[in-house]
Amino acid sequence: MKTIRIKHLLDSIADRGRDFLGLGEEVRGAAECADLCGVLVERRGVASGLALSTDILTAYAALDEPRRLAFFERLRADFGVDVAAIEETARACRQEQTPERLQQLMELAEPRRQELFRRLNAVPGGTAALVRMRADLLRLLREHSELAPVEFDLRHLLASWFNPGFLQLQRIDWDSPARILEKLIAYETVHEIRGWDDLRRRLAADRRCFAFFHPALEGEPLIFVEVALVGAMADRVQPLLDPAAPVGDPAAANTAIFYSINNTQSGLRGISFGDFLVKRVIEALLDELPGFEVFATLSPLPRFAAVASDALGGGAADPVHAWLQNSLTEFADPLAAMFPEAGGTGAAALRLIDQRPATGKDLFGAVLQRLALAYLTAPAGGLGGSPDPVARFHLTNGARLERINPFADSSEHGMKIAHGVMVNYLYDGDELVANHERFVQRGEVPLSKPLARELKRFAGAD
Amino acid sequence: MKTIRIKHLLDSIADRGRDFLGLGEEVRGAAECADLCGVLVERRGVASGLALSTDILTAYAALDEPRRLAFFERLRADFGVDVAAIEETARACRQEQTPERLQQLMELAEPRRQELFRRLNAVPGGTAALVRMRADLLRLLREHSELAPVEFDLRHLLASWFNPGFLQLQRIDWDSPARILEKLIAYETVHEIRGWDDLRRRLAADRRCFAFFHPALEGEPLIFVEVALVGAMADRVQPLLDPAAPVGDPAAANTAIFYSINNTQSGLRGISFGDFLVKRVIEALLDELPGFEVFATLSPLPRFAAVASDALGGGAADPVHAWLQNSLTEFADPLAAMFPEAGGTGAAALRLIDQRPATGKDLFGAVLQRLALAYLTAPAGGLGGSPDPVARFHLTNGARLERINPFADSSEHGMKIAHGVMVNYLYDGDELVANHERFVQRGEVPLSKPLARELKRFAGAD
Amino acid sequence: MKTIRIKHLLDSIADRGRDFLGLGEEVRGAAECADLCGVLVERRGVASGLALSTDILTAYAALDEPRRLAFFERLRADFGVDVAAIEETARACRQEQTPERLQQLMELAEPRRQELFRRLNAVPGGTAALVRMRADLLRLLREHSELAPVEFDLRHLLASWFNPGFLQLQRIDWDSPARILEKLIAYETVHEIRGWDDLRRRLAADRRCFAFFHPALEGEPLIFVEVALVGAMADRVQPLLDPAAPVGDPAAANTAIFYSINNTQSGLRGISFGDFLVKRVIEALLDELPGFEVFATLSPLPRFAAVASDALGGGAADPVHAWLQNSLTEFADPLAAMFPEAGGTGAAALRLIDQRPATGKDLFGAVLQRLALAYLTAPAGGLGGSPDPVARFHLTNGARLERINPFADSSEHGMKIAHGVMVNYLYDGDELVANHERFVQRGEVPLSKPLARELKRFAGAD
Amino acid sequence: MKTIRIKHLLDSIADRGRDFLGLGEEVRGAAECADLCGVLVERRGVASGLALSTDILTAYAALDEPRRLAFFERLRADFGVDVAAIEETARACRQEQTPERLQQLMELAEPRRQELFRRLNAVPGGTAALVRMRADLLRLLREHSELAPVEFDLRHLLASWFNPGFLQLQRIDWDSPARILEKLIAYETVHEIRGWDDLRRRLAADRRCFAFFHPALEGEPLIFVEVALVGAMADRVQPLLDPAAPVGDPAAANTAIFYSINNTQSGLRGISFGDFLVKRVIEALLDELPGFEVFATLSPLPRFAAVASDALGGGAADPVHAWLQNSLTEFADPLAAMFPEAGGTGAAALRLIDQRPATGKDLFGAVLQRLALAYLTAPAGGLGGSPDPVARFHLTNGARLERINPFADSSEHGMKIAHGVMVNYLYDGDELVANHERFVQRGEVPLSKPLARELKRFAGAD
Repeated sequence: MKTIRIKHLLDSIADRGRDFLGLGEEVRGAAECADLCGVLVERRGVASGLALSTDILTAYAALDEPRRLAFFERLRADFGVDVAAIEETARACRQEQTPERLQQLMELAEPRRQELFRRLNAVPGGTAALVRMRADLLRLLREHSELAPVEFDLRHLLASWFNPGFLQLQRIDWDSPARILEKLIAYETVHEIRGWDDLRRRLAADRRCFAFFHPALEGEPLIFVEVALVGAMADRVQPLLDPAAPVGDPAAANTAIFYSINNTQSGLRGISFGDFLVKRVIEALLDELPGFEVFATLSPLPRFAAVASDALGGGAADPVHAWLQNSLTEFADPLAAMFPEAGGTGAAALRLIDQRPATGKDLFGAVLQRLALAYLTAPAGGLGGSPDPVARFHLTNGARLERINPFADSSEHGMKIAHGVMVNYLYDGDELVANHERFVQRGEVPLSKPLARELKRFAGAD
Repeated sequence: MKTIRIKHLLDSIADRGRDFLGLGEEVRGAAECADLCGVLVERRGVASGLALSTDILTAYAALDEPRRLAFFERLRADFGVDVAAIEETARACRQEQTPERLQQLMELAEPRRQELFRRLNAVPGGTAALVRMRADLLRLLREHSELAPVEFDLRHLLASWFNPGFLQLQRIDWDSPARILEKLIAYETVHEIRGWDDLRRRLAADRRCFAFFHPALEGEPLIFVEVALVGAMADRVQPLLDPAAPVGDPAAANTAIFYSINNTQSGLRGISFGDFLVKRVIEALLDELPGFEVFATLSPLPRFAAVASDALGGGAADPVHAWLQNSLTEFADPLAAMFPEAGGTGAAALRLIDQRPATGKDLFGAVLQRLALAYLTAPAGGLGGSPDPVARFHLTNGARLERINPFADSSEHGMKIAHGVMVNYLYDGDELVANHERFVQRGEVPLSKPLARELKRFAGAD
Repeated sequence: MKTIRIKHLLDSIADRGRDFLGLGEEVRGAAECADLCGVLVERRGVASGLALSTDILTAYAALDEPRRLAFFERLRADFGVDVAAIEETARACRQEQTPERLQQLMELAEPRRQELFRRLNAVPGGTAALVRMRADLLRLLREHSELAPVEFDLRHLLASWFNPGFLQLQRIDWDSPARILEKLIAYETVHEIRGWDDLRRRLAADRRCFAFFHPALEGEPLIFVEVALVGAMADRVQPLLDPAAPVGDPAAANTAIFYSINNTQSGLRGISFGDFLVKRVIEALLDELPGFEVFATLSPLPRFAAVASDALGGGAADPVHAWLQNSLTEFADPLAAMFPEAGGTGAAALRLIDQRPATGKDLFGAVLQRLALAYLTAPAGGLGGSPDPVARFHLTNGARLERINPFADSSEHGMKIAHGVMVNYLYDGDELVANHERFVQRGEVPLSKPLARELKRFAGAD
Repeated sequence: MKTIRIKHLLDSIADRGRDFLGLGEEVRGAAECADLCGVLVERRGVASGLALSTDILTAYAALDEPRRLAFFERLRADFGVDVAAIEETARACRQEQTPERLQQLMELAEPRRQELFRRLNAVPGGTAALVRMRADLLRLLREHSELAPVEFDLRHLLASWFNPGFLQLQRIDWDSPARILEKLIAYETVHEIRGWDDLRRRLAADRRCFAFFHPALEGEPLIFVEVALVGAMADRVQPLLDPAAPVGDPAAANTAIFYSINNTQSGLRGISFGDFLVKRVIEALLDELPGFEVFATLSPLPRFAAVASDALGGGAADPVHAWLQNSLTEFADPLAAMFPEAGGTGAAALRLIDQRPATGKDLFGAVLQRLALAYLTAPAGGLGGSPDPVARFHLTNGARLERINPFADSSEHGMKIAHGVMVNYLYDGDELVANHERFVQRGEVPLSKPLARELKRFAGAD
């Protein structure tokens, strides 16, 4: 069965509706746009409502940035709640709580903006327009924190509409529509896709790509993950990205490496899909390739170089700095031998990392591994004990930190953000729940046995 | 692209999650089920969340009616709002309204139930389970009005999730899957479908059937409409339902008669799709058959016989009764001639309608038409001036009352509810907005010219 | 991508073409129809060709039986080959064989009918029309053997067009279009489908149905097979057909029973699909249910009762009769004890089978099994040594005769054709080629070990 | 319903079949391959047949060119017909023609190769393999004309299998699978597609692309046409090809320009699809855009420059040369004025064309138009009176020569083959049949009125 699309209906009704409402041909300006919003939330009646919604979205799209700001300001000021009425009704409820009063309280406590956004969502393309609207709002919010309640309402609704239960996992391959494929090229930011030949290699027989779609945003991947099917846990990313690499036989592989995960919609920032995606992709892979045994990532450490530089150059007063410095005690002698003039371990390590001397590759790698481990287990990393957003994502998901690969990404970008270090997070179905709980409840980073030993060496902990 | 379904994932994670949470193999009883809900809304973490949600829905499905009542009672008592905190925060807001306080107020004002329902919705089948849960709740609500706030929250979320922007219009025909077709047979209540041969006729070349589907309820029509493509506005329904009627050529037709509209999900009662459906179906028909000129219904009057009986047998003190009695003044003489003993017009009309004497068919028809017109335009009919739910639906949609057909439905059911009367509501794109506004804002029933003249005759109005 | 269908093109071109060719509005009669065929094969030019083809097929469809006969007679007489020219060219070739002469010979040797049929096939619906035409031809052929060359040409082309490489295997289930499902009801002849409820059971979770389709006959199953997924090789068919039987779990089953195979197109008689079907269905089942171990049929013996009756009542001169009679020697004593008056074994066995005495069930079953084994291995059964068409089909396919079930089909039809006996043919991938070769090359019926011992008992052979 | 694919079946059966037939693991060499073909055509039995076919196709694919030649030589020598038997049977038929004898004659007259090819076609991928085989054969045929009978048989079968009734027209756009789109880039030879950005422009909203597919060659376009939707009949091709051209609104257009038609399969050379394609594409366009009025091509003249050069430099003895020279008589004076030293008109015209002097653009254009008209209407052009293959294609289709555009293709290739001249062939539904008949039966080139006047001017004909 083919879904039938609405087309002219809104045009014709909108024309009549516009006449009836005494509106001119075109709506201009933020004030008029907000006035229309007022009419929309007050009015019953689907016909004029659809017409109005279409007009508002069209008018909004034509506003420039200052006018959008003015429009949101109106949404903030005029489409919020009546706090006095809430207070009064809450007091009445407290005295005697009847179902009617409770319901009234809830109705009062919902900003009129929410009904407005719901009505705007009813027209074709409405969801996409609201997602774009939130992207605008997030941008404006940086300098206009007073818009936070408006953003809160929009996020609240989008989170409800993009509930994981409504997301559809689809595999993307070389048989997918070009219209979708070109979006992968545009959206990939972790490891840039350099044109169609590069893309074709990433969709070849020994690669997989999956994305979440939402029924109201047709043909628009919300998040996608790229996976390499290989024979062992990858420790370098360049071989995975090489467009000229020979295509392997997936039947001969047993390891799935998630080497790139991309969110695509800035208007959906903060509405999390990734945790569901990883688990459903593992499931889909197991369905197709029941013999696969290892599901792991090859992930970047986006802030490692910056944190390491701060820590090694900074004082030991900061507990994170101290933690990183302390992790290198073991390397004091060889570092001093190499850079006698640098004095302390930290400065010598920094010099080693910056100069990367050809003769010290082993030392270089060992120091990087140690530092990265310290960075990922640093005590004051906020949520879950890790200062790294990618780490937090996978650890919250229930993965464990499996291996630190010091020479994993030789690209300019990889060298810049993390001196080439990447890590494998391992997803082990038997551990996911326990790992998740340890990390989220107690801030512990689950580690592989070698890394746990390594940690013990410098942390002294058990 | 084929959407990939989640399958074993939840099973395996759920097992681990259950162990970790120290849950037994099976959850029994309303209390334990509600306790789990408490854990679910408190916990971060997708893995255990999915496991918990699955457990809760499974456990709920196994509860009997008294235990479901107990479960909802817990949702009411323990998953609501803290009105004292709301009152306090509202007061603080009133004194100084910061974005933070406002956000806190909104968070406080949202019952924890809503987050609970959203998390339950995240698992496969979650939406369907919540729709069934609301059907239970509506049933229980009749005798347990204190559950209204729980129902309010569930309706609120379902209305948001079943936003018209997310509904997909699909044509249903003889090429549709049998799994969907058998649901039409089960769900049709306006004019019963008597098996597959009857169904085949209703999906033949001169018929159309459209339904709204929601992506999260696959293969489940939410509402469907049956349409006959004919050469003139139908005044009798039996020819449209006759399985043996010859199949007409749609290219030779110019009139679409909507002769049956059915909502299918009792758990979605009160969440309106019908108004959108009618307009989108008209659009779809125009797309396929651009030459079609007339879009009208052949609709029942579900409460006509009951209201007429009350009015004609009752006193004139009730304004609706007086209105109906008064409408028959014109027929006083012929009615008195036929039933001299019945005295007043009302009693004589009642007798005529009940006895249906063979010699008085013209009079019978004229009286029914007049009474039906009075019934549909009765002044005190509440919303929009009509006591009839079907009338209210179409008039709110912007249709006009076009024609009253006294001998339209000869079935037992049709005779019982409305003495065989059915009416045509006409959808004219040029009038929809104006009709809607007249009806909704001023309670006026838009009428065709002949009916307007007829109304003037007994109402004296202009 | 949706395939785009041709629609009005032929109409408009056909009109012009008809004018141009000086044809009237309608073609009537076999002669005019055949004349048009003559024009069609002579003319180059697609435009007028399509118009002509459409006219011819329309005209043919309107002919009554005698006129169809006359039409085919013309195809025989006027669209064949020029044998004198063939003889002459063959002689020239024999003298000196050049590529040109050879090509000329082949062109001469192809009846003009073949080019005619190919051109008729080019219009939409052409293939279906030719299949219907052959059904007519096969019917007429019974009394008009002179039409054999016409039928030969049509079969030759259809066999080429319905080459197994072009057939598409599709699963049919309750999600299939009703338009296809109703055809299963119509086409099933082995075990009648009694309406939609019966059909639904045959498509439930523990059943499978597969069909071959051809791209040019959309929505038309050419042959279909019904399979039951069960826990052990079925020995009775009624439990498999019972609409009220509880639905089993396919994951708990390991045996697939092919209990009904139906060819649907009489116009494709003699063009074999079944052998490919069985193998591809086994493959599809293994794909879905890799743990399945047993693939067997539960098959009727369509001619068993008739042959047994002839044999037991006839003389021993006929080798088949002797073989069947001889197979019962072992049962001489018990049969004589039961029917002393019947004298010889044969007559007593016949009486046993006809009367089916309640006290002799074991004997009855043993005699039926023995006789059926003799019937299926009778020496003079023509192709492959078996007189039974179903047996020949499966044995040619490489199956082996696994088991004979004496009380397998208690239906009236089953009792009539085979006294209730059905057999299991087993498809064992490891044996298919060897079995096939043994049967086809040497006429040996591959038997299970118990049946081989049984055969040895009365045949004395090794 | 999804078509189920055969996968492992053949592997497993093939292994057993190979054992049974006593074949080694691998078939090597042309002789062994041809021997297997002999076994294949003799044997009944699907199982071993499929195994054999797969082996043969695999073995063939591994043969190098000399071995393929040897293989085809064997097909020619050993899989042909027995001409003596044909002669004898034809003689018998001539004496008394019975259905049996006739059938025998036809069987004798069909080379065994045909049955061989049919059996090879039965395996998955068989059709594609045979198409590739014919491509090889056509290449070898150039130097080995004795293989013509083999090629004849293969072409005969492929023509039957690629009967227009089996072809599926599909629109290709930016939503099509990348796997198909990359083939357009590879196959386009008329106007090269320079990468994906170029391709995206050719599939934009004001362009259309359609292709024929065959069910047995999935995802493989057999022929495709590119169409521009514009406001007037295009006289230059570069604007149509410009990737940076603004995208027009198809609703504002009324003219469809077919600017590129490509056959893609060298193995299907000589099996015509193009005539059907053009008509079905016009039909599909009319379905989508009912207001379109003009359907025309912008076509190259592949041999124009070569023929013109020969004609103007050659003697007047050749009638085509004379015709072209004569067509320029009118331009004698201006040409002589410009090139007094060149003497006759022909030499002056050649010089004009070669030098393309800046001051003579009008004259240059006029001469080119005149010469092109003469070229396209030259009397001795073989089939249909035209020496140009593209012209023959469209004229045979029923188009008329509408306009000659002297400055239509400024590309290097366009200048080289036709001095930049391109022509519009117009498809007018009302004329197709008549034009086709005039051209095919009488060799007349249908011309627009201006061109007809132009032709009269130099040809003196009526």
